[in-house]
Amino acid sequence: MKWWGWGREDVAFSHEDKPGLAPFIGEHLAVDVSQTPVPPPALEELSLHEPQLSSGLRTALEAAVGAEHVSTDDEDRVVHARGKSLRDLVRQRRGDLPRLPDVVVRPGDEEAVRDVLAAALSADAVVIPFGGGSSISGSLEAAAGEARTVISVDMGRLDRVLAVDAASRLARVQAGVFGPHLEDQLNAQGFTLGHFPDSFTHSTLGGWIATRSSGMQSDRYGDIADMTRGLRVVTPAGMLVTRPVPSTSTGPSVREMVLGSEGRLGLITEATVQVRRRPASRVILGYLFPTFTAGLAAMAEIAASEASTSVTRVSDAPETQFSFATRKAPTPLDRVKSKALTAFLTGRRGFDPGSMCLSFIGYEGSAVHVAAERKSVGRLVARHGGVCIGASPGALYDQKKFDTPYIRDFLLERGAVADVSETAAPWSELTALYDTARSRVHAAFGELAVRGYLMCHLSHSYHAGACLYFTFAFKARSGSDELEQYDVVKSALQQSFVDTAGTLSHHHAVGTEHARWLEQDISAPGAAMLKALFDGTDPAANLNPGKIV
Amino acid sequence: MKWWGWGREDVAFSHEDKPGLAPFIGEHLAVDVSQTPVPPPALEELSLHEPQLSSGLRTALEAAVGAEHVSTDDEDRVVHARGKSLRDLVRQRRGDLPRLPDVVVRPGDEEAVRDVLAAALSADAVVIPFGGGSSISGSLEAAAGEARTVISVDMGRLDRVLAVDAASRLARVQAGVFGPHLEDQLNAQGFTLGHFPDSFTHSTLGGWIATRSSGMQSDRYGDIADMTRGLRVVTPAGMLVTRPVPSTSTGPSVREMVLGSEGRLGLITEATVQVRRRPASRVILGYLFPTFTAGLAAMAEIAASEASTSVTRVSDAPETQFSFATRKAPTPLDRVKSKALTAFLTGRRGFDPGSMCLSFIGYEGSAVHVAAERKSVGRLVARHGGVCIGASPGALYDQKKFDTPYIRDFLLERGAVADVSETAAPWSELTALYDTARSRVHAAFGELAVRGYLMCHLSHSYHAGACLYFTFAFKARSGSDELEQYDVVKSALQQSFVDTAGTLSHHHAVGTEHARWLEQDISAPGAAMLKALFDGTDPAANLNPGKIV
Repeated sequence: MKWWGWGREDVAFSHEDKPGLAPFIGEHLAVDVSQTPVPPPALEELSLHEPQLSSGLRTALEAAVGAEHVSTDDEDRVVHARGKSLRDLVRQRRGDLPRLPDVVVRPGDEEAVRDVLAAALSADAVVIPFGGGSSISGSLEAAAGEARTVISVDMGRLDRVLAVDAASRLARVQAGVFGPHLEDQLNAQGFTLGHFPDSFTHSTLGGWIATRSSGMQSDRYGDIADMTRGLRVVTPAGMLVTRPVPSTSTGPSVREMVLGSEGRLGLITEATVQVRRRPASRVILGYLFPTFTAGLAAMAEIAASEASTSVTRVSDAPETQFSFATRKAPTPLDRVKSKALTAFLTGRRGFDPGSMCLSFIGYEGSAVHVAAERKSVGRLVARHGGVCIGASPGALYDQKKFDTPYIRDFLLERGAVADVSETAAPWSELTALYDTARSRVHAAFGELAVRGYLMCHLSHSYHAGACLYFTFAFKARSGSDELEQYDVVKSALQQSFVDTAGTLSHHHAVGTEHARWLEQDISAPGAAMLKALFDGTDPAANLNPGKIV
Repeated sequence: MKWWGWGREDVAFSHEDKPGLAPFIGEHLAVDVSQTPVPPPALEELSLHEPQLSSGLRTALEAAVGAEHVSTDDEDRVVHARGKSLRDLVRQRRGDLPRLPDVVVRPGDEEAVRDVLAAALSADAVVIPFGGGSSISGSLEAAAGEARTVISVDMGRLDRVLAVDAASRLARVQAGVFGPHLEDQLNAQGFTLGHFPDSFTHSTLGGWIATRSSGMQSDRYGDIADMTRGLRVVTPAGMLVTRPVPSTSTGPSVREMVLGSEGRLGLITEATVQVRRRPASRVILGYLFPTFTAGLAAMAEIAASEASTSVTRVSDAPETQFSFATRKAPTPLDRVKSKALTAFLTGRRGFDPGSMCLSFIGYEGSAVHVAAERKSVGRLVARHGGVCIGASPGALYDQKKFDTPYIRDFLLERGAVADVSETAAPWSELTALYDTARSRVHAAFGELAVRGYLMCHLSHSYHAGACLYFTFAFKARSGSDELEQYDVVKSALQQSFVDTAGTLSHHHAVGTEHARWLEQDISAPGAAMLKALFDGTDPAANLNPGKIV
């Protein structure tokens, strides 16, 4: 894993096979992609503080997990220092590393996790659980002034599906398993979890639970909060165990308290999750809508209908144009098709190419079910002026969906700052929220005097509302801290969510990045309830302190 | 409302139009229904303690809600003293009333609720919210030794639907509204909440939320936990307000903490709930299965299928026989039909009349959808030996479903004790749970040397499991406390849940009745987390203390 960017060292985004992208970036961000990128520094150039680890604690940790799984190696400490927010990446690249974890431990089973926590508590050390390290909310970083020893507990060795109850469609799974490895194990038994966040390849079950993650097919499979039925969590008071019952009435749900807890209540070692038989048929179709408003209206109607689509996604016009700009070089046949489609849309259907919006809708299940749903949803889409453009754009989207985060590093090395913020709100409020977000972010670009781009898509639909997912990018002004500029834009976007009817995040958690907006979202008494829960469960503040509240 | 039994004073259960019932009760409970029932005592015969209410607190409460809504009336205090568990009814009838609320207040708006809580806190009084008073878990009773003033806050005047957001299908509703009045208001605008617990006519939205209620059609509409999106709660720290967003990632969900909180975190004044357009078509069909095992297997398959049924219910053989015994006198035509059906089932299909099981499956939506679902579910049912017996049993069930609780009073007045306990578990564990529960309860009947009856139905289906709902009745042995005997049976049943894979309650909450099993269900660290939350939110223990943990 890269310590300065997203994903694997051998994978990078390239513009070279996408002829439209360089001019697009040039026009909208004033970035010349032909310039030599600024490479990340070498690890050896960084100035790292010494690990602060008593020999007593080291001995206890070695006894817990085995000496070979206790690491004070520089790269380990740097990789485990933070997640992958824009703020994280910029500071990593700058070598701005005031408080690395002192030690990284890799327990191999639940008992080892218990022993690690016991050792940490007895030494009054700080424990930060680490899954895939893909957090973009600052959930993984120790406070700069933390005086106690900081232990990063990498859960990656707890990576097995322990049992599948086929009759109940429940799987007992260790929390440290990464998305692809989890799906492989379940697929081998004919099942799927159906949880595919953008971070899928670099995130873990435990991380999804700790942040209330949502995936590309959550419309059908549910968010991770819906799928997670039973939990095993190592807490200061011992093993917290909730039963994998389908529903319960045991007071406020402790299962639900662990969801989104970001390590503040304990270390999740295992979950019993709801799985489904792999569908016989699966298709994602592309559609075009004349406007974003029309696309949103269609999605709201689909959500209220008897259809049970697996994916509902609609991009606004700027994101649609960005998608078109990232297409690979067309074949002569593609050109002909594309011209014919454009002629049809602008001529016969009266689409304005500048405002049309790309959409994907997914269908899963038996062949009969998929055919029936395609038909009924197709009628609904048509009522809002939408046009189906077939399965190939959907297939392309499906293949490329996990590559998006690599683009940010590509831009960052060329002087442009990019990041995402997402929210959820009732259907009736989405347009006002969208308009507010756009006007505030463009005002922020103006205030900073930078060339910037903002785009958005609806990423998840529910009966009563949806998630809007925003991406912004701008070329930072030189002579001024790019993180300060970033903060102006990111804050404008987040503030627009809570000033309208949105929540601070639909599925990226609070961490430290969003903590400023928590009271505005859930009210001061709500934040106080979280504090009461954390303080009572972790009285000496050893468990990932400072996150959420 | 009756202070000694279920529901309205002018409604009572009668055996007289049900010719099979008297012999059935005689045989199974050794109860002679022709004997004169023991009537409840007159209110005037009860010995009630004086209300303990300082003039200062009375003045503050009168200022909060108006003098006419502050009551120290005897009947008010007795009605508000408890819910409707068997233990509650027996003690009410005995005049065993050691700790009534000292005062009943009826706030008319949220501000009045805030003022009531402020007055209570400043006088260090105990506050117990009261909705419909239908709790069967002991959630409404003050501790016998409570030395502080006890205020019962009856929420019944907060009974309006404040607004319906038709585009988002969200309704803002005051928490004190009773089921029928809520549905009337929503129906008038073309919507339904779709929440129909057995207590529907005598329970409120706030009560449903505070106990994590589930209703007859929750398979389709979701449990109250799923429907409740936004909340307004008066807490000691001020107004807790959560936004009605469809999903969010703001740390552990405070919305979910309020669900099931039984007044321990504050007084729920308002909720924004998900509503649906009233369906065009709605039908509940009756089915018969050869065995309970076959019925459960069919329900598990329906839950995994692409069908979206609104009701899935299957009774075991004892409950089926009880249902048959409560039929009204048949017409000659009924007799012919019934004989023909019996001949068909026992002859052609090989059913054993002693083991066959009655089932109801509900369908809702467009006519096309309902027809398609009936057909696909019908195929599935047939695969498990089930036979459709048409819409009339379903229609009858639909009409009579809210009358069941009245039967308990009928039995109680004839010396028989009856109550319910329900649980939820994964599909694979249901048979073992059912067998354990049956053998333990029958062992308890044996130990007590009483004639008893135990019956069960599956009441709700989920992807990964289901709710099993047990009803038991027995004729208490004279010369020994009937509540002690009751406790032996109830405890055997509850213990069988947690000793197998069940939860202590699927939708009846913890209160004081189930608190004994909490740690066995959610583990000691789970119970400690609840305690941390309550203690931190309500440091002086003024909010319905002693419930849940």
